[in-house]
Amino acid sequence: MQIAVLLYDRFTALDAVGPYEVLSRLPGAEVVFTAVQAGPVRTETGFLSLVAEASTAEVPAPDVLVVPGGPGQPAASADPELLRWLREVDAGTVWTASVCTGSLLLADAGLLAGRRATSHWLGLDRLPAGGAVPVAERVVTDGRYVTAAGVSAGIDLGLWLAARLAGERTAQAIQLGIEYDPAPLFDAGSPASAPPELVAALRARRAELLGA
Amino acid sequence: MQIAVLLYDRFTALDAVGPYEVLSRLPGAEVVFTAVQAGPVRTETGFLSLVAEASTAEVPAPDVLVVPGGPGQPAASADPELLRWLREVDAGTVWTASVCTGSLLLADAGLLAGRRATSHWLGLDRLPAGGAVPVAERVVTDGRYVTAAGVSAGIDLGLWLAARLAGERTAQAIQLGIEYDPAPLFDAGSPASAPPELVAALRARRAELLGA
Repeated sequence: MQIAVLLYDRFTALDAVGPYEVLSRLPGAEVVFTAVQAGPVRTETGFLSLVAEASTAEVPAPDVLVVPGGPGQPAASADPELLRWLREVDAGTVWTASVCTGSLLLADAGLLAGRRATSHWLGLDRLPAGGAVPVAERVVTDGRYVTAAGVSAGIDLGLWLAARLAGERTAQAIQLGIEYDPAPLFDAGSPASAPPELVAALRARRAELLGA
Repeated sequence: MQIAVLLYDRFTALDAVGPYEVLSRLPGAEVVFTAVQAGPVRTETGFLSLVAEASTAEVPAPDVLVVPGGPGQPAASADPELLRWLREVDAGTVWTASVCTGSLLLADAGLLAGRRATSHWLGLDRLPAGGAVPVAERVVTDGRYVTAAGVSAGIDLGLWLAARLAGERTAQAIQLGIEYDPAPLFDAGSPASAPPELVAALRARRAELLGA
């Protein structure tokens, strides 16, 4: 089973690495990090690069596709070659998945028309432009499309996919292996629970956080 | 403020990327990924490489040090040059931190003698060999040393450090930015909650999971 994780300039690292850390532990899984051009791909902060081992042209038929979000998403959505690859590989996937504003990239490729989907909470209201129906939940499925909320939600997405691909017992073993027993220091991880002034402060920085 | 994240062959990706994703968002933070030799460093699965932008020799005085774990930890602990660098930079840090079996590397460098520390639940009983006192908690602090449990606990560690370095409000804003409102599909992320047969199964695979 081949799992392709798309990289592009200024993606968010945890969006990609969360699902990878779960899905790479599935029996028989081969994970390939891919970008339009193979080689190091810079994350949003500029401090870190992940290596795309293969160009998208070398990954024509993954079983599972995972698309991260990040401030680079608008530029990625403006790349016709990348949108064409997304449409081509999506036609053959068992699951097409996204984390954070990766769903906006899937929507811009025309893959979420009429479908329920989620995104980073700051990006939800951009989904309708691509024809998707925004749903403010952690992990949202519609057919073989599964989308996750912002950044850290990719770990939850990974476990959801692991359970579907290999069964609940295997998913639980992976959860135990990565000791995913989260204990956030604060209850501030969603706009519903965070102090309202922080929600407002992040809304004011939306262009910087989501790109464009 | 310079935050150094150590990389070494066969580290666990999420151990490093979880804290990075939080700490890189601190105002004024510079995160540098570093390894004994600069360049791409392979993670435990072989599917992914992160780029060490600087050699450890080029990072002599970070303010914060973050050491991930992984199956490569025993080999890293056998590298005298790496242990020497850990001791040298630790002498000047504000915080020295680890995720997962990164604490065993700190212990092997002699930095946790007599200190309370945690590790991946499968690695806790290896801490006393390095003189540390094992504590089965998510994030454990002792003086300026802060250690986290397995893999995904690095996100919790990151938020803990963010609160100490920049205040609770900034840490909460980061938590909201990465939408860290976890919703694990199962309650199987710790040996206390997971099905006992899965705990036993992972114990039987300990050498493979922790290395050596």
